[in-house]
Amino acid sequence: MIIITVGNEILSGLIVDTNSAYIAAQCDAAGLKVRKIISVSDDADEIADALASSFSSPSPHCANVTLITGGLGPTNDDVTKIALARFFNCTETVVHRPSLENIEARFAARGIASNELNRQQAEVPACCTAILNRHGTAPGMWFERDAAIAVAMPGVPSEMKAMLPDVLNRLAGRFVLPNIVRRTMMVYGIPESTLAEMIAPWERMLPENMSLAYLPDVETGVKLRLSTTTDNKDSTAIDERFAALAPLLGDSVYGYAPDSLESVVGQRLAERNATLAVAESCTGGSVARRITSVPGCSAWFKGGIVAYSDEAKANLLGIDPRDLERFGAVSAEIAERMAIGVRRALNSDFAAATTGFAGPAGGTDENPVGTCFVAVAAAAAVNVVKYRFVADRATAVAAAAATALNRLRLFIN
Amino acid sequence: MIIITVGNEILSGLIVDTNSAYIAAQCDAAGLKVRKIISVSDDADEIADALASSFSSPSPHCANVTLITGGLGPTNDDVTKIALARFFNCTETVVHRPSLENIEARFAARGIASNELNRQQAEVPACCTAILNRHGTAPGMWFERDAAIAVAMPGVPSEMKAMLPDVLNRLAGRFVLPNIVRRTMMVYGIPESTLAEMIAPWERMLPENMSLAYLPDVETGVKLRLSTTTDNKDSTAIDERFAALAPLLGDSVYGYAPDSLESVVGQRLAERNATLAVAESCTGGSVARRITSVPGCSAWFKGGIVAYSDEAKANLLGIDPRDLERFGAVSAEIAERMAIGVRRALNSDFAAATTGFAGPAGGTDENPVGTCFVAVAAAAAVNVVKYRFVADRATAVAAAAATALNRLRLFIN
Repeated sequence: MIIITVGNEILSGLIVDTNSAYIAAQCDAAGLKVRKIISVSDDADEIADALASSFSSPSPHCANVTLITGGLGPTNDDVTKIALARFFNCTETVVHRPSLENIEARFAARGIASNELNRQQAEVPACCTAILNRHGTAPGMWFERDAAIAVAMPGVPSEMKAMLPDVLNRLAGRFVLPNIVRRTMMVYGIPESTLAEMIAPWERMLPENMSLAYLPDVETGVKLRLSTTTDNKDSTAIDERFAALAPLLGDSVYGYAPDSLESVVGQRLAERNATLAVAESCTGGSVARRITSVPGCSAWFKGGIVAYSDEAKANLLGIDPRDLERFGAVSAEIAERMAIGVRRALNSDFAAATTGFAGPAGGTDENPVGTCFVAVAAAAAVNVVKYRFVADRATAVAAAAATALNRLRLFIN
Repeated sequence: MIIITVGNEILSGLIVDTNSAYIAAQCDAAGLKVRKIISVSDDADEIADALASSFSSPSPHCANVTLITGGLGPTNDDVTKIALARFFNCTETVVHRPSLENIEARFAARGIASNELNRQQAEVPACCTAILNRHGTAPGMWFERDAAIAVAMPGVPSEMKAMLPDVLNRLAGRFVLPNIVRRTMMVYGIPESTLAEMIAPWERMLPENMSLAYLPDVETGVKLRLSTTTDNKDSTAIDERFAALAPLLGDSVYGYAPDSLESVVGQRLAERNATLAVAESCTGGSVARRITSVPGCSAWFKGGIVAYSDEAKANLLGIDPRDLERFGAVSAEIAERMAIGVRRALNSDFAAATTGFAGPAGGTDENPVGTCFVAVAAAAAVNVVKYRFVADRATAVAAAAATALNRLRLFIN
């Protein structure tokens, strides 16, 4: 199948097209393989061209379905309905009564009278089946020709999301869809290329009907996703493959999606009834932000100190100003003292600390821009590692924050 | 021109394709009109097909340029290079020396030996011009046939972003591009629909050759972008229109792109030789993170305290536990005390504080989920406002952080 998203604002880069990713994920999970995503402008010819290319190149492996979003609004620049009517040679229109009633009711609820432009949204080409829009005014439209199907949905994300399950249900009734099972292993601390070499022998042994996807990301590490088609929703075949892989990767495996480094740190702390505090210099709040993105984290997260100035390191973390002078704020010694200091200040069981040069300015010959010391501490031990993240400021900070979370994960044992 | 993004993870909805929006925006600003964006899987035939459709349907109004991202990684599933070599009938490969040196140097800097897979990334089809990747290992590749150009860039966003200016420069040398002048006014604190009504009379007076775009965003507020085509790079016509608009919007206007709320706060502090500290509960580090994203912020940012627990609020911010008991941690009184406390703890001139219920759990009848108190403080004054952000946890936190920065901006005067 093919997804077409319509809108000048997509082609001029004013907005990121999140609709296509949402639709693709839902289709993928339903066993509908997306072959291509096309974004075109609010131009009836461009829309019709995209449809034509979609209808003329059916894949033997895919249902010939095109899902379209956008261009259904009431104004002149919304021309998807015109393009569809033209493509399906359908000049006659009919009023979709449920949509007209819906439009009138929505306006009445807001105490405004609907106008002609609004009411026209209920008019659809006679050759399509209209789909009621429960979260807005523009109905969806289902077209068929030969064995091919095209469905237009509104571009407003909340309206599209409300309509999509209805569309997928109708599609499931028309095609024999495979049962897709997938699982994603989360790996941190092994560069993608090294990982590829390590798992190559395992990958070569994967059965034909199983596919592997790599997803490297600075915040999560590498995600390894296995997908397969089964007669039922049983994931045993995938579980067995991952069970064979896990020992090769050791403690670099931190879980399976939707686990995140921060959620795993939280689980480990909760299991031990232990608490955490963080002291951040170069990461500037990014570690705390990731931790506090976990709902319910207040059960185990005591808080953090963003010690950006030497003064903050001294006053809040109890670091001797002479040590700052002697070692420099970006040093293993200060990272250790920060972790110990925040653990004491917040009376937590575990602590992590970061100090480094995020750039673009700063750095020394010994510790150039990108250098970051990450320390972790508990009652009995403190432990520091020096890293270098060669990247722009935002990426270096994100990498340092992820590294701190990963080191915490490994340390809490 | 056409943008092709390559990756199974896009078609299965695993990731949102942000690269195409970024590239589209940069091209648009350079006067290169994007006609279509196509996302295809990591399949050499699909990539070649997309290229073929791009090369065979030049638009008379557009430069025949195809920009491709993705599929240049070192692993087996990265096949863009193969697809390009096939499309351009180029079987011979050469080693791009600067890229090989870059790869070796990057691995050496990390203390790891490069492997064969990494070194192979420096091999490019002989018929292309390689482009050095300053932020990663895979070089870009520039292909030409007749008057058509195809350029492949890495899919890692930071690597693509670092390479794109180089690519656009080369394109600017090859095509006569229109001079597009645009400027973006940054507005915070007026809902989009209210803003639309407020500026409607002004908008109707805009000349034919000038276009307005609205960009609402939870982190930045609404951006209002004016674009026009001129014979030179003179922005006077746009400046005059904004000068007429600014008085209508008052202090909701906080600057012009690339200004951000955090950069404006920093400018105001730097001008006054003043310093800032922040105390965060519900925003959990997001305010500090935005502040520390400003290069050079250590000149005016002393630090922050993420006081997630009552203990942190008491120990680090000096809040009387009885007050926490009496008012509740989510209250105007505690927000004020947090701002005053962090200002004192970090010895700063200004301070901001947030406390609220980010959700999904928590909240009271009086202060339901989404409630957030934002306080700002200086030596002579403290000032608190209650907000309600009806959204998911991540969006509510982002809105609260932006609001805190905006209140600081208005307070530092």
